[in-house]
Amino acid sequence: MIYLDNSATTKPHPEVMDSFYQAATTFFGNPSSVHRLGMDTERLLRKARHQAASLLQVKDEEVFFTSGGTEGNNLAIKGIALQHQTRGKHLITTTIEHPSVLEAFRSLEELGFSVTYIQVDKNGTINIDQLKQALSQETILVSVMHVNNEIGTIQPIEEIASIVSAYPKAFLHVDHVQGFGKVHLPLNQLAIDLCTISGHKIHGLKGTGIMYKRKGVTLFPLSHGGGQEQSIRSGTENVPANVALVKAMRLIHEQMEQNKQRLEALKGRIIQKLQTMDQVVVNTPSPAAPHIVNFSLPGIKPEVMIHALEEDDIYISTKSACSSKSADESAVLAACGHRRKITESGLRISMSYETTEADIDYFLVKLAEAYDKLSKVMR
Amino acid sequence: MIYLDNSATTKPHPEVMDSFYQAATTFFGNPSSVHRLGMDTERLLRKARHQAASLLQVKDEEVFFTSGGTEGNNLAIKGIALQHQTRGKHLITTTIEHPSVLEAFRSLEELGFSVTYIQVDKNGTINIDQLKQALSQETILVSVMHVNNEIGTIQPIEEIASIVSAYPKAFLHVDHVQGFGKVHLPLNQLAIDLCTISGHKIHGLKGTGIMYKRKGVTLFPLSHGGGQEQSIRSGTENVPANVALVKAMRLIHEQMEQNKQRLEALKGRIIQKLQTMDQVVVNTPSPAAPHIVNFSLPGIKPEVMIHALEEDDIYISTKSACSSKSADESAVLAACGHRRKITESGLRISMSYETTEADIDYFLVKLAEAYDKLSKVMR
Ligand SMILES: Cc1ncc(COP(=O)(O)O)c(C=O)c1O
Ligand SMILES: Cc1ncc(COP(=O)(O)O)c(C=O)c1O
Repeated sequence: MIYLDNSATTKPHPEVMDSFYQAATTFFGNPSSVHRLGMDTERLLRKARHQAASLLQVKDEEVFFTSGGTEGNNLAIKGIALQHQTRGKHLITTTIEHPSVLEAFRSLEELGFSVTYIQVDKNGTINIDQLKQALSQETILVSVMHVNNEIGTIQPIEEIASIVSAYPKAFLHVDHVQGFGKVHLPLNQLAIDLCTISGHKIHGLKGTGIMYKRKGVTLFPLSHGGGQEQSIRSGTENVPANVALVKAMRLIHEQMEQNKQRLEALKGRIIQKLQTMDQVVVNTPSPAAPHIVNFSLPGIKPEVMIHALEEDDIYISTKSACSSKSADESAVLAACGHRRKITESGLRISMSYETTEADIDYFLVKLAEAYDKLSKVMR
Repeated sequence: MIYLDNSATTKPHPEVMDSFYQAATTFFGNPSSVHRLGMDTERLLRKARHQAASLLQVKDEEVFFTSGGTEGNNLAIKGIALQHQTRGKHLITTTIEHPSVLEAFRSLEELGFSVTYIQVDKNGTINIDQLKQALSQETILVSVMHVNNEIGTIQPIEEIASIVSAYPKAFLHVDHVQGFGKVHLPLNQLAIDLCTISGHKIHGLKGTGIMYKRKGVTLFPLSHGGGQEQSIRSGTENVPANVALVKAMRLIHEQMEQNKQRLEALKGRIIQKLQTMDQVVVNTPSPAAPHIVNFSLPGIKPEVMIHALEEDDIYISTKSACSSKSADESAVLAACGHRRKITESGLRISMSYETTEADIDYFLVKLAEAYDKLSKVMR
């Protein structure tokens, strides 16, 4: 199997599975229980939180375990809006965010907040001038993703953070789900108040994630209850899954140091090949994240290409699920200002550190073959 | 190890671990992905949902997978309140609910809702007359737990459902986290609109749960995003964990039929023994759920007894975590109207179908020994 849909989800790493199994069977206690089994589990959780904090270079008490990226984004965004609405009811985000950000903002519009959606250029980079103009004393939250999940654009978070920090009432949230382990984001050096990570994008387990919240920032929780996670995220802690998440974070962190250049080279190889193919348009800008290549095959339905490659046990994807108003169009490519022919024919290759040169070479041969065949039929 | 804290959390069943492992390694795709791997995973999810629905005797589209009991309770309660607030802003619950219910209601009070907390008698049974008086045309939600997690009281849900159903604007939510697999609740026969279940209380995995929502009932989601779970609960579906949850549901369902009498007998044995012990007060009423026995040892700090039994590898618990205003008191026992001497010395034994007669006999011997020793020292 050549799996090139790692931005949708990844295969859990065997060591992640092992960590989970060990913790789930040995440390099955409830960290809130007074007895030794509970206390041992609580200690394991504390250790996991400390390791996560070390990897993120933040404080232990700034790490909040969640059930994933969607929960993290909703908790950060709605949590700030509901908690700080008396300071102002204006929020800012961008037109190319993941649905878990965009829809959270739309739900806040229903509750009476006003939202400015910052536009992006052809490369998917946000319009900094528009951001500057939109910011006001009424703004309480700016949410910008680090790496875009469809085309791989990296936003200038450092610049954005410095602009937002001139507005002391405005918090900055960064969706780092696609960036973590691929493109470094120095949380401890930038004025970022909240940041979201998801486990299943980094060979961890589904249903795991971390929300970073800078110490002192207050939030209205989504789930109230027993007071776990400093009362920001109640519910019996999923210690085995959190341990597995931290294992995945450590593994990808090591691999990032070793393998980022290799991934960049594979990406270059793909783009080079695509550029030789007739009518193919590469939508991923340069520079961008090392693992994503988005391109369009005008006139060919993405689903048809996906199913063609599937025959050779190769898995790639089209736009991310459910994010487009029009069923056939990529909302991200549309936001970048591409023509309909491009937005409705986008395909995404997303690699992981496990992707090999041989995988890519085989994929490129099969892609060219299928393209040739389909071009003749479809056009 | 003799683990008698199964109402706090349970050890995952080996077959649950196997199901999880199989699904996580084989069906790791994203159900939203267009390719075969995604479609196969989507099919597995559909199958799991169908099995869960069959066990609950409800429709497939009435089953919503969540990250646990706390999320299920918050989603049901806040979801109804926020969605239907224009119909009325009055809510009803009871004084002995789990914190994930009580604190959800308190957070809604902050947002301008008014809440009536129905009181309970010495047995923990709610005051039906007070419920009747509290209900009005302004009431949009009544939330009552099925089985209490500290003392095992079973609420008369059938009677409550028939009372609430006379108020067409009022929805009924039942926290069934402690009841599922222990005390039958016929969702298809009662006018219940929403119901919460948690995986880790039934030898499933932590971070898993189901919220039942009757077809046609609309909710404001906690997490918006990609539109998964009919847009009620967005986020990449945790298919392996959901499959494992359904496995746990099937196992406990089978065991309930085989073993409920056995558990009742063990409970009787414990209570009989406790009644022979000087000054011991049994707080669990009769009838009640088959797995919980709550009792007080006036004058002895619960923590001391817990640590004494721990020496013999026996694990029991005190009140549930974080639910009491006063750190030393059980809020549930206080709500039942017990004196301070009782509320601050409560202990809970919670069995599972894996608990054997030998476990209980050994526990009772060790409890009597420890009680004897501690009584001499403490009094
Ligand atoms: C950029 C981005 N943010 C958020 C999410 C949501 O994360 P999760 O699937 O863990 O809910 C995803 C992936 O689905 C994503 O790519
Ligand atoms: C009655 C009851 N409701 C809700 C919960 C919360 O469930 P979870 O631990 O899955 O969040 C619990 C247990 O903690 C409980 O006993």
